[in-house]
Amino acid sequence: MSNKVVLAYSGGLDTSVAVKWLIEKGYTVVACCLDVGEGKDLELVQQKAFDMGAEQSYVIDATKEFSEDFVGYAIKGNTMYEGTYPLVSALSRPLISKKLVEIAQAEDAIAIAHGCTGKGNDQVRFEVAIKALAPHIKVLAPVREWSWSREEEIDYAKKHNIPIPINLDSPYSIDQNLWGRSNECGILEDPFATPPEDAYDLTKPIEETPDTPEELELVFENGLPISINNKSYPLDQLILKLNEIAGLHGIGRIDHVENRLVGIKSREVYETPGAKVIMEAHKALETITLTKDVAHFKPVIEKQLSEQIYNGLWFSPLTDSLKQFIDSTQTQVTGTVRVKLFKGNVIVNGRKSPFSLYNEELATYTKEDAFNQEAAVGFIEIFGLPTKVKALLETEGVLK
Amino acid sequence: MSNKVVLAYSGGLDTSVAVKWLIEKGYTVVACCLDVGEGKDLELVQQKAFDMGAEQSYVIDATKEFSEDFVGYAIKGNTMYEGTYPLVSALSRPLISKKLVEIAQAEDAIAIAHGCTGKGNDQVRFEVAIKALAPHIKVLAPVREWSWSREEEIDYAKKHNIPIPINLDSPYSIDQNLWGRSNECGILEDPFATPPEDAYDLTKPIEETPDTPEELELVFENGLPISINNKSYPLDQLILKLNEIAGLHGIGRIDHVENRLVGIKSREVYETPGAKVIMEAHKALETITLTKDVAHFKPVIEKQLSEQIYNGLWFSPLTDSLKQFIDSTQTQVTGTVRVKLFKGNVIVNGRKSPFSLYNEELATYTKEDAFNQEAAVGFIEIFGLPTKVKALLETEGVLK
Amino acid sequence: MSNKVVLAYSGGLDTSVAVKWLIEKGYTVVACCLDVGEGKDLELVQQKAFDMGAEQSYVIDATKEFSEDFVGYAIKGNTMYEGTYPLVSALSRPLISKKLVEIAQAEDAIAIAHGCTGKGNDQVRFEVAIKALAPHIKVLAPVREWSWSREEEIDYAKKHNIPIPINLDSPYSIDQNLWGRSNECGILEDPFATPPEDAYDLTKPIEETPDTPEELELVFENGLPISINNKSYPLDQLILKLNEIAGLHGIGRIDHVENRLVGIKSREVYETPGAKVIMEAHKALETITLTKDVAHFKPVIEKQLSEQIYNGLWFSPLTDSLKQFIDSTQTQVTGTVRVKLFKGNVIVNGRKSPFSLYNEELATYTKEDAFNQEAAVGFIEIFGLPTKVKALLETEGVLK
Amino acid sequence: MSNKVVLAYSGGLDTSVAVKWLIEKGYTVVACCLDVGEGKDLELVQQKAFDMGAEQSYVIDATKEFSEDFVGYAIKGNTMYEGTYPLVSALSRPLISKKLVEIAQAEDAIAIAHGCTGKGNDQVRFEVAIKALAPHIKVLAPVREWSWSREEEIDYAKKHNIPIPINLDSPYSIDQNLWGRSNECGILEDPFATPPEDAYDLTKPIEETPDTPEELELVFENGLPISINNKSYPLDQLILKLNEIAGLHGIGRIDHVENRLVGIKSREVYETPGAKVIMEAHKALETITLTKDVAHFKPVIEKQLSEQIYNGLWFSPLTDSLKQFIDSTQTQVTGTVRVKLFKGNVIVNGRKSPFSLYNEELATYTKEDAFNQEAAVGFIEIFGLPTKVKALLETEGVLK
Repeated sequence: MSNKVVLAYSGGLDTSVAVKWLIEKGYTVVACCLDVGEGKDLELVQQKAFDMGAEQSYVIDATKEFSEDFVGYAIKGNTMYEGTYPLVSALSRPLISKKLVEIAQAEDAIAIAHGCTGKGNDQVRFEVAIKALAPHIKVLAPVREWSWSREEEIDYAKKHNIPIPINLDSPYSIDQNLWGRSNECGILEDPFATPPEDAYDLTKPIEETPDTPEELELVFENGLPISINNKSYPLDQLILKLNEIAGLHGIGRIDHVENRLVGIKSREVYETPGAKVIMEAHKALETITLTKDVAHFKPVIEKQLSEQIYNGLWFSPLTDSLKQFIDSTQTQVTGTVRVKLFKGNVIVNGRKSPFSLYNEELATYTKEDAFNQEAAVGFIEIFGLPTKVKALLETEGVLK
Repeated sequence: MSNKVVLAYSGGLDTSVAVKWLIEKGYTVVACCLDVGEGKDLELVQQKAFDMGAEQSYVIDATKEFSEDFVGYAIKGNTMYEGTYPLVSALSRPLISKKLVEIAQAEDAIAIAHGCTGKGNDQVRFEVAIKALAPHIKVLAPVREWSWSREEEIDYAKKHNIPIPINLDSPYSIDQNLWGRSNECGILEDPFATPPEDAYDLTKPIEETPDTPEELELVFENGLPISINNKSYPLDQLILKLNEIAGLHGIGRIDHVENRLVGIKSREVYETPGAKVIMEAHKALETITLTKDVAHFKPVIEKQLSEQIYNGLWFSPLTDSLKQFIDSTQTQVTGTVRVKLFKGNVIVNGRKSPFSLYNEELATYTKEDAFNQEAAVGFIEIFGLPTKVKALLETEGVLK
Repeated sequence: MSNKVVLAYSGGLDTSVAVKWLIEKGYTVVACCLDVGEGKDLELVQQKAFDMGAEQSYVIDATKEFSEDFVGYAIKGNTMYEGTYPLVSALSRPLISKKLVEIAQAEDAIAIAHGCTGKGNDQVRFEVAIKALAPHIKVLAPVREWSWSREEEIDYAKKHNIPIPINLDSPYSIDQNLWGRSNECGILEDPFATPPEDAYDLTKPIEETPDTPEELELVFENGLPISINNKSYPLDQLILKLNEIAGLHGIGRIDHVENRLVGIKSREVYETPGAKVIMEAHKALETITLTKDVAHFKPVIEKQLSEQIYNGLWFSPLTDSLKQFIDSTQTQVTGTVRVKLFKGNVIVNGRKSPFSLYNEELATYTKEDAFNQEAAVGFIEIFGLPTKVKALLETEGVLK
Repeated sequence: MSNKVVLAYSGGLDTSVAVKWLIEKGYTVVACCLDVGEGKDLELVQQKAFDMGAEQSYVIDATKEFSEDFVGYAIKGNTMYEGTYPLVSALSRPLISKKLVEIAQAEDAIAIAHGCTGKGNDQVRFEVAIKALAPHIKVLAPVREWSWSREEEIDYAKKHNIPIPINLDSPYSIDQNLWGRSNECGILEDPFATPPEDAYDLTKPIEETPDTPEELELVFENGLPISINNKSYPLDQLILKLNEIAGLHGIGRIDHVENRLVGIKSREVYETPGAKVIMEAHKALETITLTKDVAHFKPVIEKQLSEQIYNGLWFSPLTDSLKQFIDSTQTQVTGTVRVKLFKGNVIVNGRKSPFSLYNEELATYTKEDAFNQEAAVGFIEIFGLPTKVKALLETEGVLK
C-alpha cells in the first residue's frame, strides 16, 4: 500500500522541516509548490524540495487560473469579509487544495499535508476544500501536530541540515498572491500600535508617493476589467500592472481587527493596491448599469459569498448558487471608468456604459426634463398610506 | 376657520416666491426656518420672511437636537445608503418636519408647505414625516404645483419685488447641515464628467492639503464620540470641529450615482469630512468591542435603517425597533481610536477599549499563546462534516 | 394612425362594459381572453366579446405555459407572500400581460386595457409587466377611470344592452387559476368574521371530508412533481388532479389579512389544495437533498422572489437572477415523498432520494454509528470561544 | 480544594450511572433536577439521586420561569428553526444551565456535568451556556466520555446496583417540557418510514379525535396569550391547558429532517399542541397590528433568533439585541383571536384588536370606500419607472 503524502511546499522553514518530519514518520513525500501571482522562483523551490528529501517535486504557475476562476468572482461579487478584507489568502486556498488533490490522485497518494498551525483560518480552508474534492484522503498538519516552539523547530532544523532562512527573525507572518498581501504577528498583535513601515511591501507610504496624480481609464466587460488606458491585458497581468501603479501611489493599505473562523479576533494588515482600484471602479460602473432592485439585493449575496470564501466553503453547493446569481447580474456591467490615483486615494471621476440606466432626461433639472412631477403626488399618497393609517390610530384611538 | 399655512422657509428664491404665491392663494403664511448645523444667519432670514409678507416668522437653531436625536443614530448605526451616501439631507428632514408640525399645532394652522420639486426624495420625506406626526394636516408643495421654468419664476419674483439672489446662475442645487453637504445639477448631471472644483466647499482638493499629517485621538462612549485629543465637546460641536480639521485635509468627498426613491438614478456629490472621520473611527472601535455574531448581523440592521432614513420613514415603528437594536449594541462601544488625517485619507492607526474582546493571549503566536490548537482538529471535523457527506454522495453515488 | 386597444377580456360585467365604453371613446377593441387553468368556456367568451362589439376576439389556453414558466418557480422557490399566500393571481398577471403585448404588437395596437380597479395589486402588476415588455404602449384602466358605483355601472349596462350576469349580487370578488382561487369582499371585509361556507368552492369543509385518509406517493425531478402514485402527468394536469383530490379532503384553505402593495391591509380567503400538497412535499424533499448552508440561505432568496412576484416585478433583472439561484439549487431535488391527505391535513410520512444527504450511519444511535463523538469536544471549545471570551470580560473586567 | 461536581440529573439510567461514575472518579456529586413543565415527580427524583450516592440533591420547579423568560420569546418571535421546529429542547437548555451554574456557585463546585452524548445539539447548548455564565468552571460529559455501548452501560449499572428502568427497551430518545415533546431514534431513523403511533404521546391520532370542533377565543396582551374563553391563566398554565385541549384534537404533530449544529441531518418527531395553537393565533394577530414594514422585516430577526436559540447561543449579546427588537414590536400586539380546533387543524376564524391597522373604510369595495383610486396612477408611474427605463434600454439600445 502507498505511503505517499503530497505536501503543500512553500520552500520556507516550516514546510522544509515538514519534509524531514514526514519522512521520519515513514512517509514518501511528494512536494508541490504553487505560484498564485506572488512571483515565486519556482525552480529554486523545486530543487529545494528535492534537497530536503522529497521523492518528487511539482511546481505549478497557477496565476492565470487563479485570476480567472477565483479572483474574477471577488471582482464581480465585490467580496469583502466584514466589509474590509478583500479575501486575499482565502481566495487562493481552494485552488491550492484542488491542485494538491489532483496530484494526490495522479500519484496515488494516501494523504495530503499542509503547513498551517492550529489557530488560523487556513487549516480549515485547506482541510474542508480537500474533503470536498476527495472525501477519503487523509489530511496531515505537521506544524499543528508537532506544536514546537520556534527554538525547538530550529534545533530540529539544525540537526537535520535544513538551511535556516536569513529572514528568520522577521516578526511577521506573511502570505501573498496576485490579489494582495497579508501580514500579521509581531508588533501588530497590539491593536493600538501603529503598524511600522516595514510591515508593508507592495505600497509606498503616502509621504513618499508622487506629487502628481495619475488618471487611468479602465474598461470592463461583463463585470471584469479588460484594459487600462486602452491597452488590453489578460486579467492576471492587468492586476499585476495595477498592483505596481497603485502601489506607487500608496493605495490599498488595510489595517483590520477581524473575527477569525476559529473564534478569535486577530489584527491583520493587508495591501491590495490593484484590488482597491478595480473594486472601486467596478462598484462605480455598477451604479449606472444595475437596476435599483438588483443594486439593493446584490449586497446580501455578496456578504454571504464573502463569508463562504472566508470560511473555506468555496467548493459547496451554496457557493455555486451564489456565483450563478452574481454572474447573472454582470451581463451588462460593461463600460468605462475614469479613476484618479493620488496620495493613497482612488477617486472615481467618471463612469459611462452602453448599458447605462442613468437617464439624463429624467435626472435633469433643465428644460429637457422628462419626469412627470405630478405623478409624485399619487406616489407619495400611496407610499405614505401605511404611515398615515398608523398615525390615525395613534392620534384618534381606534380606526373605523 | 384658519387659513394659516406654515411654510418651511429657507430664505432662498423658491421659498420667498412661495410666500407671495401662498398669500395670493388666500393663505396667511407663517414662515419657519431651521438651522441644523449649516450656520445660517437666522436673524436675516427671519426678517426676510417678514419682508416677503409672512405674518409670523420663526427661526430655530436645532443643531444640538439634530446631532443628538438624529446624527447619533447615523454614527451608532454606520448608516450609509447604498454603501456610499451618509444620509446628509435625509437625516434632517424628519427633524424639520417635526418642528413644522409643532408650530402648525401651536399656530392652529391648516396646512404645511415645503419648497421641494416633484422629482426628488425630499418631497416624500417631508410629506411622509408630516403625515406620521399629524395625519390630518394638509401638505402644500408650491414649487411642484406651479411647475414654472426658471425664467417664469424670475418674472414672477420681479413682478412681486422679491429680491433675486446674486448667486442665481449657480448651476448647482445644494443642501447642507452638520453632517455634510450635498450638491447636484449642472455639469454633474453627466456622470462621466469630473466634478469641477467649484462643486466643493467644505473640503480642500488633495493638491492643496497640508504636507504634514495630523493625528487625532477620538474617545467614544456608548458609540458616540465625546472628545478630540482629550478635549471634550458636545456632539454638535465635535462634528463641526472635525468638519473643519478634516476638510483641511481634503477628507470626505463622495461622488455617487444613486437610486432615488422616486425611481430615477441621480449623480450626487457629497462632502462629509467630519462624518468620514467619525464613522471610520467608530467602525474600528466596533471591531474590538462587538462580538463576532453582533458584528456579522448588525450590518443587516444598518442597511435596513439606512433605507428607512433615505426613504423618509424615520417616524415609523420599524425605525423605532431598528434604533432599539442599534442602541443595545453600543453599550460597550467605548474606547479610544487614533486616526491619522492626511491627503484625503483617514487612517486608523490604533484602537483600544476597556471592553475590548481582542485577547492578545489568544491571538499571539508567541509563547504566551493560550489557544488550544488541538481543539481545531475536532472543530474542523465537525465544521467540514456536511461538505464531506456531500462529497461522499458525489464520489460514491448513494449514501448508506 | 391606429386606434386599436387590446382589452384583457374576461367575459364578466366590468370588461363587457369596458368594450362599449372604449368604443364610445373612439377605440377599436380587440378582446383577448386567457384560460390559465381555471377552466373557462373560451368559445363562449370569444363570442361574447364579438357580441359586445369587439372587432377581434382572441382566446388562448395558456394553462400549460402558465404551469411551466410561472408555477414551476413557485414550487421550486416555495414562494409564499408574508409566509402565507401562495401568490395565485400574482403569478398569472405577467403571463397575461405578455400575451396582451404579443397581440398588441401583432395587431399594431396603440394601447392595452385591463379591468382592474384603482385599489388593488393587479393594476400595478399589469401595468408594470406591460411596461417591462413594451415601454411605449399606452395602458388604459377603464374601471379605474370611470369610477362608477355598482348602480351606475348597471344602468350603463342596461342602456347598452349588455347582459347582466345572474350572479351579480354575489358579494365576492373572485380570481381563479391552476394554482388556486382567491376571494375577497363582502362579509370577509370584517376580519373578525368567520368566512361563510359559500366563500369556498374548490375545497370541502372538513366536516364533509372522507373518513378514510388517502395516501399518495409523489415523485419529483429537479424540484418539480412528475407523477402521482406512479402515474406520470404534465405539470398542469398534475396540479389539476391534485386540486381535485386534495380539495375533497378539505386541504388548502387560507384565511389571511395581507399587506397590499398599495398600502392597505386586506382580508383574503384562498383555496390552494394542489399547491398545498405539492409545496409540503417539495419542502420535505428539500430537507434531505439540500445541504445545510443552502437550506439556511435559500429562504432569503425565496422571500425576495415572493415579494418580487407579489409586487408585479416578474419581468425584471432581479427576478431573473433570483430564478437562476433557485434553479441551481434544484438539480438534486429528485425523489419520492409519501403524503397522507386527511381531514384538511397534508401529512408527510416519508421522503427518500437517490441524492439524499441524510446519512443513517451518522445519524444512528445504534452500533453502526460512524460519527466521531470525540470531535465534538474540540468543536464546542472553538464554537464557544467567543462566548467564553465575552464572559471572561464580564466576570473579570479587562482582558489581557 | 473542592472536588464537587454539579450533575444535571434526570433520574434516568444515563445520569444515574453518571453519579456512580463520577464518584468513582473521585468527585463529590451534587445532583440537580429541574422540571420545566414536563410534570416530573421531583420528590422521587430527589430521593433517587441520594440513593445513587449524591451528597446533595436539588430539585427545582422552573416551569413558571421557563414560560416567562424563554417561551415568551418563542411566542413573540414566532421562532421556528428551519421554518418547522418550535425549539422545544433548545429553549430549556439555557435555563437549566443557569440553574446549574447558580448551584455550582452556591456549592462552590469545580465542575458541572451533563448527560448528553457527543453527537447531539444539547451538549453544545449546555456547554456554551455554562461558559457564558461561568467561563472558568469545568464541564464534564460522562456519557460522551465513557462511550459505552448500551450493553456495557447496563453491565455497569447492574454491578453498581443501579435500578434498570422498565422502559429500557424503548427504541426512542425523548425530551419533553412545557413547549412540547421531541422524539428521535428507532424506526424514525429511516426518513421514509411512517412514524408509528407509539412515537406520539401528547396528541391523539386524527382518526381518534372528536367529531365536533372546538372554538376558543384567545386574548393576547403585548404579544403573549393571557386568557382562553375569557378565563385568565398565567402563561405556563395557559400553555399546559392548551396542550391538553389541542392534543385531544390531534394538533401539533411535526415530522422533520433537520440540520443539526454538529453537521448531520437527523429525523425528529415533535408534538407541540399548545405551541401550535398559540403561534398560529399570535401570527394572525400580528397581521392586523404590525405595520407592513415591521411585518416584512421581523421575519429576518425571527430567523436569526431561531438559529441563535437552536445553536445554544441564548446568553449572548446578539440574542439580547434580537430580543429587544422583538419586544419593541409587541407593544400593540394586543387583541382577540378566534380559533377552531378540529381534526388536527388550527383554523383562525377571526382576529380583532384595539390597535388594529386594518381599516375597513380603506379596504372596502362598498360606497364607504375612503381610498383615493386616482393616486394609484401616479404611484404606478413612479413605482414602475425603473422597469420602464430598463425596458427602454432593451428595446431602443442606448438611453439618452
